[in-house]
Amino acid sequence: MFEQLGLIGCGLMGGSFALALKNAGLVKRVVGYSKSPSTTERARKMGIIDIEAPSALLAVSGADIVLIAVPVAATEASFKAIKHLVTPDMLIMDVGSTKRDVVDAARRALREHVDLFVPAHPIAGKEVSGVEHSDPDLYVGKQVILTPTERTAAPQLQKAIEVWSRLGCNVQTMSPEQHDAAFASVSHLPHLIAFALMNAISGQPQGKEYLSLAGPGFRDFTRIAASEPKVWRDILLSNREELLAQSQLFQRSLQALEAMISSSDAQGLESLIEQASLTRAQWSMNSRNKS
Amino acid sequence: MFEQLGLIGCGLMGGSFALALKNAGLVKRVVGYSKSPSTTERARKMGIIDIEAPSALLAVSGADIVLIAVPVAATEASFKAIKHLVTPDMLIMDVGSTKRDVVDAARRALREHVDLFVPAHPIAGKEVSGVEHSDPDLYVGKQVILTPTERTAAPQLQKAIEVWSRLGCNVQTMSPEQHDAAFASVSHLPHLIAFALMNAISGQPQGKEYLSLAGPGFRDFTRIAASEPKVWRDILLSNREELLAQSQLFQRSLQALEAMISSSDAQGLESLIEQASLTRAQWSMNSRNKS
Repeated sequence: MFEQLGLIGCGLMGGSFALALKNAGLVKRVVGYSKSPSTTERARKMGIIDIEAPSALLAVSGADIVLIAVPVAATEASFKAIKHLVTPDMLIMDVGSTKRDVVDAARRALREHVDLFVPAHPIAGKEVSGVEHSDPDLYVGKQVILTPTERTAAPQLQKAIEVWSRLGCNVQTMSPEQHDAAFASVSHLPHLIAFALMNAISGQPQGKEYLSLAGPGFRDFTRIAASEPKVWRDILLSNREELLAQSQLFQRSLQALEAMISSSDAQGLESLIEQASLTRAQWSMNSRNKS
Repeated sequence: MFEQLGLIGCGLMGGSFALALKNAGLVKRVVGYSKSPSTTERARKMGIIDIEAPSALLAVSGADIVLIAVPVAATEASFKAIKHLVTPDMLIMDVGSTKRDVVDAARRALREHVDLFVPAHPIAGKEVSGVEHSDPDLYVGKQVILTPTERTAAPQLQKAIEVWSRLGCNVQTMSPEQHDAAFASVSHLPHLIAFALMNAISGQPQGKEYLSLAGPGFRDFTRIAASEPKVWRDILLSNREELLAQSQLFQRSLQALEAMISSSDAQGLESLIEQASLTRAQWSMNSRNKS
């Protein structure tokens, strides 16, 4: 399907993509670049990439598919680094968990070549990171959200759908705005709330004592509060508009419950709780997201 | 230790207490009363109680220990029902998960006999309810919070500590206010938030689509949103003052994070997330609460 993958960022996500592409026989060569030369070297020694590139620019030279798998905040710099060797039939993708910011960065940095870029968010990951945890099966059975814009070229979008499908993914397309609103609501906001709750408790004089009384419900509710601070700082900042909008909706919903409690409206309170309880009981995670 | 237990409410909590007391050889007879005569009959047939009482009043006649194990909202009516047969060396306890409201109800209904009442909250339960699930080991290894007031008689408090300890519980005492603040913060507020989040998402036109994209983090975070509406309606209403106070602290903490996000204060945001992440990583559930 492809001659050469140019891989910018040889971490868990990028390394796993290269291995998966190779295993599926979808690419002949992988040229890789990482900010840290030792990572690039390790990726070559592990057979994840075939050739070490000394720069992002040289990694895309001659490539017909390019994957940018760097932290969201470094995406724009990667676009800028490669733009002089972008060719018209190249497919360029990323793997970031926010999409509007990446689309904006692509517009600014790639300019007339922005049509070659298909923003992608594979819903996959591991507790651990780094090239050494690369896994050719990381994406198998997972959802991949593609967020094309009105500028995205149709052949590129077709190729993107095909490559992720052939890796065993369930591919969905939506607008970058829809994507960011959805993940603001079901992922970014829950993280924000969990951080806020932990800080609200620990900020009280008796916070330690309160925490010592917490049980299994609290354990599950706050699990995501232990997430990596730098990663979540970037995600929350990247998706700030949608996140703040979702947070407003949440606070209105919380205040509606508070009003029922304040006014001792038992029936109204019960019906709001019933609605929440029913929605949660009827929800079941898309099986493709389970691992 | 005791001659006769008067049990008001032969459900899971009450039935398990009676069985535990019998198994430990701490009581000779159990006289039980439930609102539903068929429940009382079943409790007798199962050997949980020895004698069926036709009323709450008659259940306490001749008892030296009384356990009120009814829904929190029915506690005051139980106090009123028994007050004419309360004797000065009786130990009276409850098992409710909120305490200020129960203490107030005891003051109003028991009047000069309020000194005999030791408010208790055993942190134990099961997914299922009903006398048929009574379990003599329900309380073994669990925490029991006693919330005596300045009116509570010292001998009664001593006896209460001793009986729960002999059932294998870890007994802690604190004021009703401390108890309600602690559980507002680590249990009632997380439930309120989870209900609010589910309603905020499902209230949006694209809520269903958003929910279909949610993953394991969301699953754990919202698990408590599926809790029983009537039970949680009563808990949230019973503990309204502390709950609303904790909810204010939480909203301030959330707004502090939002302010960092709005102003793109990456360093400030990271340090708030770090604080939350560290608190959660260092927290570990009291092993006695684990099951």
